[in-house]
Amino acid sequence: MFSPLIDELMASLRCLPGVGPKSAQRMALHLLERDRAGAERLALSLHKAVEGVGRCQRCRTLTEQTYCGICANNRRDNSLLCVVETPGDVLAIEQAGTYQGKYFVLLGHLSPIDGIGPEDIGVDQLINLLQQEPITEVILATNPTVEGEATAYYISERAKNLNVTVSRIAHGVPLGGELEFIDGGTLAHAFSSRRSL
Amino acid sequence: MFSPLIDELMASLRCLPGVGPKSAQRMALHLLERDRAGAERLALSLHKAVEGVGRCQRCRTLTEQTYCGICANNRRDNSLLCVVETPGDVLAIEQAGTYQGKYFVLLGHLSPIDGIGPEDIGVDQLINLLQQEPITEVILATNPTVEGEATAYYISERAKNLNVTVSRIAHGVPLGGELEFIDGGTLAHAFSSRRSL
Ligand SMILES: [Zn+2]
Ligand SMILES: [Zn+2]
Repeated sequence: MFSPLIDELMASLRCLPGVGPKSAQRMALHLLERDRAGAERLALSLHKAVEGVGRCQRCRTLTEQTYCGICANNRRDNSLLCVVETPGDVLAIEQAGTYQGKYFVLLGHLSPIDGIGPEDIGVDQLINLLQQEPITEVILATNPTVEGEATAYYISERAKNLNVTVSRIAHGVPLGGELEFIDGGTLAHAFSSRRSL
Repeated sequence: MFSPLIDELMASLRCLPGVGPKSAQRMALHLLERDRAGAERLALSLHKAVEGVGRCQRCRTLTEQTYCGICANNRRDNSLLCVVETPGDVLAIEQAGTYQGKYFVLLGHLSPIDGIGPEDIGVDQLINLLQQEPITEVILATNPTVEGEATAYYISERAKNLNVTVSRIAHGVPLGGELEFIDGGTLAHAFSSRRSL
């Protein structure tokens, strides 16, 4: 409509999650009319991140170094290993601010229907870690979905013969959550997992 | 938290309108985990657009050519000139699909409090167009805000002595809009601007 370069910018902004045609248009015009320095900074940081960011050699999270900041941090508790699906999960747990152990990031979950097996989510690498490091407990923090539960179950089976405690994070009604707004599956789980006081 | 390159990517995504820290994080991780080709394409199109896109020499809208596609289109009606505040307004009117004339884009509105005067929104250039082109009607489509109304009034005063009809687009209840959801200012305007049938 405007010009080939602006049309191409609007089209390429659609690669961002949650950005539809209207948002892409608004973003493109905002950048060109009011924030060209921001647009150049974004272009450069996208390019540098794509070129530079790979996976941590130990935990598989995203980093441009050989080992990520958490794996390289000697003050973290080496006896705890938390297994999550994505780097975003690491960030969420870090932002909660209480966990002091280390992580292993599957970068996905088992999904036979999509052809995603144990080798795709690094289970052998995880088992190696459990054998080689002084880990005493592995905390499975995969998502409470069908695939996340299956992945947690598979890992717990594989870890059975190793000298390590396997635990699963608790699921139930969120703190501060109002019962009437919680979905039925969560409520049912909260009841079946009730503890005596 | 993750790494300097990812932190910088998250920070620079914040230049996009409507993108807060949570969205920036989600976007950065999505691109790095699942769409690196999209990220490279976006980086390149941002860079090319910032380098290449300037203003149309006639109407001031955004384009990488000397004259935008609308100004350069000989099949558009040269007797009508629609004055809008932004390139996004041009796009909205074009998408409505009925206007066949040409445009002039102020790239803003009069705002004495921000030091934005007639010279900043190209009023002299607009008056030159009205004198040099076979324009018979100028349609003021600035926004129905205090600044947009003041800008429309200022331009209508400046155009008074030229041999050109000056009109303002109609304001009122949107077609399909339900009265109970329309703001009071719009309703009051719709009543004071009522027409006999
Ligand atoms: Zn790591
Ligand atoms: Zn033009």
